[in-house]
This record gives sequence, C-alpha cells and structure tokens, in this order.
Amino acid sequence: MIRAGIVGATGYTGVELVRILSGHPDVTLTVMTSTQYVGKEMAEIYPALRQVVQQPLEAFDPDRVGDRADVVFTALPHKLPMEIVPGLLDRGVKVIDLSADFRFKDPVLYERFYQPHTAPGLLEEAVYGLAEVFPEQVASARLVGNPGCYPTCALLPLIPLIQTGLIDSRGIIIDAKSGVSGAGRAPSLKTLFCEVAESFKPYNVGVHRHTPEMEAVLSRVAGRPVHITFVPHLVPMSRGMMATLYAPLKKDAGLGAVARAFQEFYGEKPFIRLMGQGGIPDTLNVRGTNFCDIGFVLDPDANRIILMSAIDNLVKGAAGQAVQNMNLMCGLDEKAGLSGVPYSL
Amino acid sequence: MIRAGIVGATGYTGVELVRILSGHPDVTLTVMTSTQYVGKEMAEIYPALRQVVQQPLEAFDPDRVGDRADVVFTALPHKLPMEIVPGLLDRGVKVIDLSADFRFKDPVLYERFYQPHTAPGLLEEAVYGLAEVFPEQVASARLVGNPGCYPTCALLPLIPLIQTGLIDSRGIIIDAKSGVSGAGRAPSLKTLFCEVAESFKPYNVGVHRHTPEMEAVLSRVAGRPVHITFVPHLVPMSRGMMATLYAPLKKDAGLGAVARAFQEFYGEKPFIRLMGQGGIPDTLNVRGTNFCDIGFVLDPDANRIILMSAIDNLVKGAAGQAVQNMNLMCGLDEKAGLSGVPYSL
Amino acid sequence: MIRAGIVGATGYTGVELVRILSGHPDVTLTVMTSTQYVGKEMAEIYPALRQVVQQPLEAFDPDRVGDRADVVFTALPHKLPMEIVPGLLDRGVKVIDLSADFRFKDPVLYERFYQPHTAPGLLEEAVYGLAEVFPEQVASARLVGNPGCYPTCALLPLIPLIQTGLIDSRGIIIDAKSGVSGAGRAPSLKTLFCEVAESFKPYNVGVHRHTPEMEAVLSRVAGRPVHITFVPHLVPMSRGMMATLYAPLKKDAGLGAVARAFQEFYGEKPFIRLMGQGGIPDTLNVRGTNFCDIGFVLDPDANRIILMSAIDNLVKGAAGQAVQNMNLMCGLDEKAGLSGVPYSL
Amino acid sequence: MIRAGIVGATGYTGVELVRILSGHPDVTLTVMTSTQYVGKEMAEIYPALRQVVQQPLEAFDPDRVGDRADVVFTALPHKLPMEIVPGLLDRGVKVIDLSADFRFKDPVLYERFYQPHTAPGLLEEAVYGLAEVFPEQVASARLVGNPGCYPTCALLPLIPLIQTGLIDSRGIIIDAKSGVSGAGRAPSLKTLFCEVAESFKPYNVGVHRHTPEMEAVLSRVAGRPVHITFVPHLVPMSRGMMATLYAPLKKDAGLGAVARAFQEFYGEKPFIRLMGQGGIPDTLNVRGTNFCDIGFVLDPDANRIILMSAIDNLVKGAAGQAVQNMNLMCGLDEKAGLSGVPYSL
Repeated sequence: MIRAGIVGATGYTGVELVRILSGHPDVTLTVMTSTQYVGKEMAEIYPALRQVVQQPLEAFDPDRVGDRADVVFTALPHKLPMEIVPGLLDRGVKVIDLSADFRFKDPVLYERFYQPHTAPGLLEEAVYGLAEVFPEQVASARLVGNPGCYPTCALLPLIPLIQTGLIDSRGIIIDAKSGVSGAGRAPSLKTLFCEVAESFKPYNVGVHRHTPEMEAVLSRVAGRPVHITFVPHLVPMSRGMMATLYAPLKKDAGLGAVARAFQEFYGEKPFIRLMGQGGIPDTLNVRGTNFCDIGFVLDPDANRIILMSAIDNLVKGAAGQAVQNMNLMCGLDEKAGLSGVPYSL
Repeated sequence: MIRAGIVGATGYTGVELVRILSGHPDVTLTVMTSTQYVGKEMAEIYPALRQVVQQPLEAFDPDRVGDRADVVFTALPHKLPMEIVPGLLDRGVKVIDLSADFRFKDPVLYERFYQPHTAPGLLEEAVYGLAEVFPEQVASARLVGNPGCYPTCALLPLIPLIQTGLIDSRGIIIDAKSGVSGAGRAPSLKTLFCEVAESFKPYNVGVHRHTPEMEAVLSRVAGRPVHITFVPHLVPMSRGMMATLYAPLKKDAGLGAVARAFQEFYGEKPFIRLMGQGGIPDTLNVRGTNFCDIGFVLDPDANRIILMSAIDNLVKGAAGQAVQNMNLMCGLDEKAGLSGVPYSL
Repeated sequence: MIRAGIVGATGYTGVELVRILSGHPDVTLTVMTSTQYVGKEMAEIYPALRQVVQQPLEAFDPDRVGDRADVVFTALPHKLPMEIVPGLLDRGVKVIDLSADFRFKDPVLYERFYQPHTAPGLLEEAVYGLAEVFPEQVASARLVGNPGCYPTCALLPLIPLIQTGLIDSRGIIIDAKSGVSGAGRAPSLKTLFCEVAESFKPYNVGVHRHTPEMEAVLSRVAGRPVHITFVPHLVPMSRGMMATLYAPLKKDAGLGAVARAFQEFYGEKPFIRLMGQGGIPDTLNVRGTNFCDIGFVLDPDANRIILMSAIDNLVKGAAGQAVQNMNLMCGLDEKAGLSGVPYSL
Repeated sequence: MIRAGIVGATGYTGVELVRILSGHPDVTLTVMTSTQYVGKEMAEIYPALRQVVQQPLEAFDPDRVGDRADVVFTALPHKLPMEIVPGLLDRGVKVIDLSADFRFKDPVLYERFYQPHTAPGLLEEAVYGLAEVFPEQVASARLVGNPGCYPTCALLPLIPLIQTGLIDSRGIIIDAKSGVSGAGRAPSLKTLFCEVAESFKPYNVGVHRHTPEMEAVLSRVAGRPVHITFVPHLVPMSRGMMATLYAPLKKDAGLGAVARAFQEFYGEKPFIRLMGQGGIPDTLNVRGTNFCDIGFVLDPDANRIILMSAIDNLVKGAAGQAVQNMNLMCGLDEKAGLSGVPYSL
C-alpha cells in the first residue's frame, strides 16, 4: 500500500483528494493537515464524511509528514507549497503540488504573474502533470506541478491539433466556463449563493493567471511562441468546466485528420472520451469523474474548428488528475481509485 | 457472482440501479430492459455512462430475463410490476420491486389509492424492504416491496420511538421535502427548470399516496392504528429528501430515552448515522449515498420531539435501499456496492 | 412628495428598499447611508442600478438625515437602530425600523434573546408593523417595528384563526422554509453557493429568535400565553419564504368557518391573496411582490388544519411591508409603489 | 390609450408581454388569445398574476382581434404568424411578430432554415425591430419582425464596430450563453430541472437558426457578406443571456475609437448601458429589465477585441424589445412601460 498525505485537506480540492484517496484500493491515507482545524475530524468540517473518514487533522510538520507518507499532495494556495516542498523532497517523499508553484519552467514567467519564487532550483525538475500528454515524465518524477483546471480543460483538446500542425497556433480563442467551486471555500461576496444564482458573467478577462500557464505549455508543444485569447466565465453551478475553443484549421487539414489526431493521441487513454465530429460534451456527464469529454464541429465557411471539452474542475481539473499522476508515479494502474461509475444526475 | 437484471433501466431510479450494480463487487449486471430504447446503449440515453456501461438495452421477455438473472429489480411505474413479477418468481428469480405494487399487505388498501391488484396472492409473502427494520424478513424473502422515498425517510426516525412507546402515536406530523428527481424523468410542465427554480411549494397535501404506506407500517409496528398528517414539498434541487417530524413525547420519556432508543435500534446499522440531540442533517451530506442521517431536538415547552431525517431520494429512498435488500437476500455484506466515499459538494 | 431616507442602504434589505422607493410615485428618496461605501453610488455595489439610481451614499448623520427626510427606514443589524432612532424621532422624523429592536413591547423579552435595550422607553410607543393586522395603530405611529420575515409569513395565516378561536392555541407547529437572501449579504461560509446548492436543511431548531417575536404577538392576539414550535429551514433559492403551519381545529369549527375567518380578515386587503381550501401557494408566485398567498387543507382524521403561506422574504417579509407601513403612516394609498405586475418566472 | 392584443399569451414570451403591457401607462391590454387555455384566466396558468390580470383568454379570431386592438403582438411558434398576420394588417392593425417569420428580407434564406413562406409579399415591408439600430424604420412600420434573443444580444455590440469599420468583418466569433427560458414552456426532456441543473453545454453548434438572421443583418450593415461563427450554450438559470464576441481589430483602430463608436451609437439610447473598456456585464444585473449592458476588453497581443453583452432573453431579447418597438410605432416615449427599477437579486 502506498502511504499518502494531504497538506491542506480542508479546502474543496483537499476534501476531493480525501474522497478519492479514502476509496483508493492501493493507498492508505496516513496524514491530513490543516491550519485552521487542527485536532478536528474531517467530518466536523464536511459532515458528509461522518463515519467514513475519521482520522483527525494535524498541523503540518515536515518530519511527521515525511515519516508517514510516501507521496504527499500539497493542496494549498500558491506561495505556500514552494516553502515546504523542498523539505518534503529532502525527506524522500514524492510530491504532487496542486498550486501554480511548480507548473512553470521559467521562474521569470511565474514571478510576473505570482510572486518571487523561493525554490526556483526545483522548476527544471518539476514535471507538468498533464497526465495524458506527459505520462513518461510524470512516471519518473519526484515532483509534479499539477495543472490548473482551465489549462487541463483547454490543453487536452488543443495539444493533438497543435502538435500535428492541423491548426494555426496563431488565432486560438478559449472561451471557458467554470462552476463556482473553482473559487474555493473561503467566504467571499462573489461566491455567495444570492450573487451567483441567475448570474452568468465573464471575469478576469485578459488577465487570468492561467493564460501564461497555457501559453507556456502550448509554446513548448508547438516549438514556437503561442499566444491565446482566454476568457473565463462563472456558471451558476457547483462543479464543472467547459471550454469552447476556436482555432483556424490549416488549409490542407480536414475533419478526418482532426478525428485521426484525437484518436492517435487519446484512443487508448482511459479518461479521455472522444465524442467525435458533432459530439457535444456536457458538464453534467463528467460530474464527479476524472473524464474529459471532447467533441468538435467544423465551421466550413471560416475553415475554423470548434473544439468543446468538459471536465469536473475539482476532479480532472484538480484532485482526480493529481491522483492519476500519483498512480503513474507509483507504478499503479492509471485508473486506480478513479473508476467509480458516474452519476447521471 | 450474483447475476442481476433491471426491468426499466432508463428512468432516474433505473439509471441509479445501473450505477450501483455496475460498481458492485459481487454482482454482474446481465440484463437491462427498456420499452422506449430497445437496442440502444445506456450511454445513448445517459452519456455520463459512455465507456462505462456498454451493454445494450433489451425488450422485456420473462424467459430471457429469468434465464440470465438470479435477482431482478423492477423499476417501473406501479401497475406494471404486478403483471410481470409472478412470472419472474415462477422462473426462480428473486424480485425487488421499486413500485408500490408489493408494499401493502392489504389489497383493499392498495386498491383504494392505486388500482385493482392483479397479483393479490403475493402480498402476504412480499416483504416490506425497510432494510434496517425488517432485515431478517428481507433476508429470507423471494419478493421485496421496496419502500417509497418518503416512507423510508419518515419511518426510519419514527419507528424506534413508536416501538419503544416514547412518543404518542396520535399527533404525528411529517413535513417532508423532496428534490425534483423524485418526480421522474417523464417530461412534465411541473418539473421544467423554469417552473422549479426559485420555487418552493407543498403538493398533494393530504392526498399523497405515501400516506397509507406509512400508516400501514406504523400501525403494524405500533400494534394499533396510527394516523399521520403528511405534507410533502418540492425543493429546487435535483436530489435529496428531508423529513421534519413532530410528535408528542410521552410524559415519562426524556431526551436520554430517545437517544438510547435510536442507539439500540441503529447503533450497529451501517447506513444510519445518528447525529444525536441537536444534530442537524443536511441533504447535501447524504447526496449520492445510502445514508440516512437522523438528528432530534426537544421543544420542552410543548414536550414535543422534533425529528429530522435526510436521505438521497434516489439512493436510500430507492435504488440504494433496493441493492441493500438484494445484499441481504443474497447473503452478501449489507454494505457491498454501497460504500463509495461521499462527495462533500 | 414624501421625502424618504434609508439608513443602511447596501444590504439586501436596503437595496430592496432602494428599488421600491425609487419607483414609488409619491416618494423622493433623498438620502441613503452606508458605513462601508460612503461616497460611492449604489450602482457601484449593485450594478443592476446603473443609470437608474445615481445618488451617492453618505455617512449617517442624524442632523443631515433629519433635515432631509420625513420618514426614515433603518435597515441595520439589531442593536444599531436603538442607538439612532431616538435622535431621529427627536428631529421630527417618522421611523420604520427593520431590525428586531422595536418589535417587542417587553424589554425583558427582547433582552433575553438579543442584548440590553438602550431605548426601552420607546417600546411602548412603537407599533408592530404587521400592516394587515394593526393598520390603525400603524397609521398613527411615529415609530414602527417592522416584523421579521418568518413572523410575517406565519402570523398572517394564524391570527384570523387564533382571534376567532377556531384553532387551539396550544399545539401550533410552524415548519418554515426560507431562501438564502434572508441570511444577508455578509460573506459567510454558510451562504456560499457550493454550500447551499443541493442542500436543504433545518437550522436554529428550537432557538431561532423569531420564536419569541411570534409568541409575543400571538399571545397578545389570543389574550393568553401562546407557545409555538418553530423550525426554520434553508432552501437553495435566493428569495422566497414558505410557512407550513399545523394547528388543532376546535371541535365545533369547520372548513367553512376557517374560510369565512380569512375572508373577513383579509377579503379587502390588497396584499393577501386567499387561495381557499386546497389552494397551494408557491414562493415563485410571490417573488418580487408584496403579496402573501394563503391556502389551507384539513386533515379530517386528526381534525388538524394545515395552513400554507408564501411571501418574498425581502419584500412582504421586509422592505415591501416597510413601505406599506410608510404608506399607512403618511396617508398614502396602501398599495402605492407596491403594485408592479409580478414576474411569472 | 393604445389598445393592445397578444396572440399567444401563455408561453414564456407571451406572459412577459402580459406583464409589461399590464403595467404600461399608455396601453390597455384588450385581448389575449390562447389555443390551449381558451376561457381560462391567465392566473390559472400563471398564479403569480392572481388578482392582477383577470381578463379571460380567448380563441384567436381575426375580426375580434382586429376590432379591439390597435397593435397586436404575435407570440407564436414560427409558421403560425405568417398565416394570420396578413389578415391582421388588412384590418388596420399594426403587428409586432416575435417569431422568425418576418425577420428576413429574403424569402429564400428564410425557407432554407424554416419552411415555405406563405406571405413573402410582406417581407420587403417588414422592419427588423432592432430598436436602437433601426428606430426610424420601426417608427413608421406597420409590421415589425422582432429580433431573436441571440441576434439582439450579439448585434447590438457588433453593429457599431462593423459600421464604423473598426473590426474586420471576417473572423467574428460569437460564443453565446442562454438561460433555460429561451427554450420555451413546452414540456421537454432537455429542459427538465434534473437535466439542466449542474449542466453547462453547447447545443446546435454550427446549425442554430439565429446564424443566418445575424449574418443577414450584419451583411446589410457592412455592405458586403459577413460570416460569423456562432456557438450557443445552455446555462442552468431561468433568465439571462450573455454573448462573448471576438473580432479582429483593424490595424489603425484602437480602444479609444471603439469607445467612441459605442458612445456615438448608443450614448443617448436609454436601454444600452455602456460599461466601457474593462466593463464586465452580468446577466443578473439585467434580469427582468430591457437593458443591454456592453463592455469590452482588448487582447493586445492578438489585436483582438473581446465584446461582452448581457440581456434578459425574455425582455430585451423578446417581449421588452417588442414593447419598445410598439412605443416607437405608436409615437410613445420609447421607455414607457419599461422603466421599472431593476431587482439586484
């Protein structure tokens, strides 16, 4: 059994990790930390877990975590992970960080959008944990920077077409929509029920910090700088994320080539469900799962491909992909702990 | 492996059975029938199940079902099950019926609220599948009438207090609230999104057909006729059911006795989570689970006990309890297939 | 034109007052105060009001308010109003307070559930602003304590039956349900979208501070102490409140007498819509309006009357009733400013 | 007083017309027709209107309607209006049709996406009722084809930039999102609460019939054929529509020119609220109103302008704009009946 720890177990991403790891057949969840709720049971914060998860929350201590875990998930706001991850690695623990701290190769880029990086020496080693795209690198990693939810949702449909050169990497537009849980559990006016219900709105237009993350990965895949136009929106629902992407199809490319590219990249991938030409994803269909559903439609008059991609922002967009990465890092079945039968409503 | 079949797999209760049975470690789901969708895959109706449940839907045929299943769940509107259940039993199959057809001992009572019963000879044999209350009877049953969602939610908190005589069986009020999925998947004006959002309302006040079902069971438990006042309400949410129950506490009874009664009845029951005095259930905490969370508060001035009980109407109120009954009938662990870690949002 | 002021204009009740008074044909909204947003326009806090309400928010100053307003609405958390209301009255202003500070005749009762009262001398004079029940007292009042939302919703259906002696004032149960806006606009974990969606739950069971408010009014109307059992619940919707009330019908009373009592009390009242025997209110039908819809059903076996009452908690349960009271106090048409045609969805 | 009639008063658009016209200071609503509910009161179908709208619904008869109305709103599914509108016009009535039947100048275009047109002779005369763009034509029209909801939401922000040549009319992408009421009131699986809640999805991608409507108007304004890529999505909310539009800015154009174009076109228009550079509309802020809120952001790296536009699909996207058109046609104040103070939640 793999011994797993969660640093920051009480946010929405943390509790999703608790859920998945508690049901994982090859994992023992040995330690869960919290700043705010030390000594309490998870069920005091999330009563859904009564009689299911009964272990108390602890204060973070690198030795105590390092001794008791083989792999640690850091589910903290950015800035905190880079302070503790080096110490965890030193203690021989594998780390999957769910913040932005280890998603960038280039500290300058990170620092432009976040703050000074205190562990820049680890960036080169850290693997960007987009599990379907970089599986070998993840498998041999000590440290994984788990992708953001928007990047996961947008990069998965884009990369096959970028890498095969079927779309023009100039002219990519990502119109993305997220459920409210993406904003986290800290009380905030913006996520109050009465402010969100019957409200649909864009936010952080042109300035969202997932933009450089996506551009960096796409540029790496394309082998040249890629710019994207990215507009996120908030949807009045708890979970779910949809990206509608628009890109110019290359002249000689056609729908068949697009379908083949997806098939080659993802035909064997258990968590990508290809819906093909005309296939329309729906966030409800991936709710609570690690699936990414992808469909596409051609606008023939503009020779523009419309890609549609749906994930659960807390699962494939965070905790689920993190566990998928752990599975790869620990030599487990990629699907282990992630194959519950989906709810249909 | 137990071979299980579902007759009527495409309603909300049916698909919930598909979900649970597909993930059940001791069950092979061998046959799923539908009237409307013969030949289709479940995933064509519920795309959440793509690449997960791939077996085609079949027309119902008693021989084909009888040959391939050890236990059959009939998830059909009332009236249909009583027409096919006798044939299934004749073929040696155990049956769990999720309609009202086999919930009543007395055909006259059934016929007053439903229609003429065409298999009254089976009513005596049929076991009312309130799994925590009648486990032995269920275990030896050939035919189980699975309780309605409201009866499950209301009877579980009431029965320990009725049976121990702690409450006066006259004067029971059940104010219950259900999510919209309880109304099923047939298109209807009443369950359109725009008619339900921002709407909270009572319905079928004083005439809901779950009233006689509850009264019959309570009368049986109390050993004398019990009347209840029952008002169901519709809540703008998909899943979940809450019953708030009011009953006069007997003079010599106190909170300690109430707590003890619950502990004795349910202390060892895996799906009842006792929250004790002041414990407040929430439908969100049982969503997608087979749990029934129960709390209570005393109004000392009126010497009235307030019981609160939450379930997921589709799980403990339907498909989950049906599988729990199957587990008991087939000698499996009562929790088998029903112990997924809950989602907290 | 009546000059009106709002002290505390930026909470949910405050903005509802702004909405109603800005559209009131006989009122000029001359002053709006805020602590947090002094100098800003309402539209900066509530962009729905852009180009509609353009007056800036001011700090509260009793002289500046007293000079410019004939009537002032205090929409502040309890404790604050009792500190400023005496000064406003001294300046010749009529006051409608939307907190609990002036709802109780008995300071001892207030102090048991709130805190020491700093203006107890005004309690005798203050009129409880249940507009349909105490219209003459309101009309001649200088100071009105505007009822709480739950008391409004529950007292309106109860009072005619209490006063005519048709129900037994012992044995009243109020099972009430409120939309989330009742909890106000201050950021709080409990009212985050993800904590409320798909959640239905009781809260403050047996200890809600609206209980003594209701009991005091009912006792006054009944001429003897009345105790109620009150359980509020939170519904996943923004606005709306439903009370389902249960009371023993007196032996000689019948449905006809109940219907007549309602007709006599409310037949001429413009904001009470009597739905009669079997009439089922729905919060959606009163959303955004000052209506209170009332229906009832008899449970003949228990000789118990079931009353159902729906209001919009922010309108009839707060700002709308406050304006109705202002209309009465200022000799205006009771309906002025409150007769917009309802939305049906 | 203008005498107004509504043919098809009981759909969601119909009842919204009833709401607005019942509160319109210069209008008497003289006749409302229905096929399904002849003889009933509106309040029997929409109980929110109890004691507010009490006139009975009638069967449609051209003489009876023609005699009693000066202006008629036809709120019917397409195909029906073109059958009755000629007869209404013959009787001297002005007509505002809310279907697609009179939105196209070219019957061939209409017939490609709908069905054979039975009154093609009226298409030349019919005015496309985008009130801010074609006010003079509307003012002198006998027959107005009221724009679709998506076209209204998308054309309003696009037209000033197309007409001033600030954007390249090739390369326009419209990513639009609608609340569920846009799908109407007919019971349908797709609009059931449980199918919509927690679901966000595209639909009719590349084949929505509002595409040719928008292209026809844009081509007319641009003076050359304009193609758009249009993807509508369904949002789990009752009302509201957001369009996020992407267009290449011409080289010499800048943010200042964009702001000026909007100011020139809409600076004096009462229902357009310009939010300027960085302004972010929100459907909640226009809910129940006739406003269209418009903001924009530049993506400087791509020299692409991002336009954002929010309306209430039932008001500015249907009934509200229809009444605005009536006001123009009848020489009334454009704002009459449409200036209720907005709700903020």
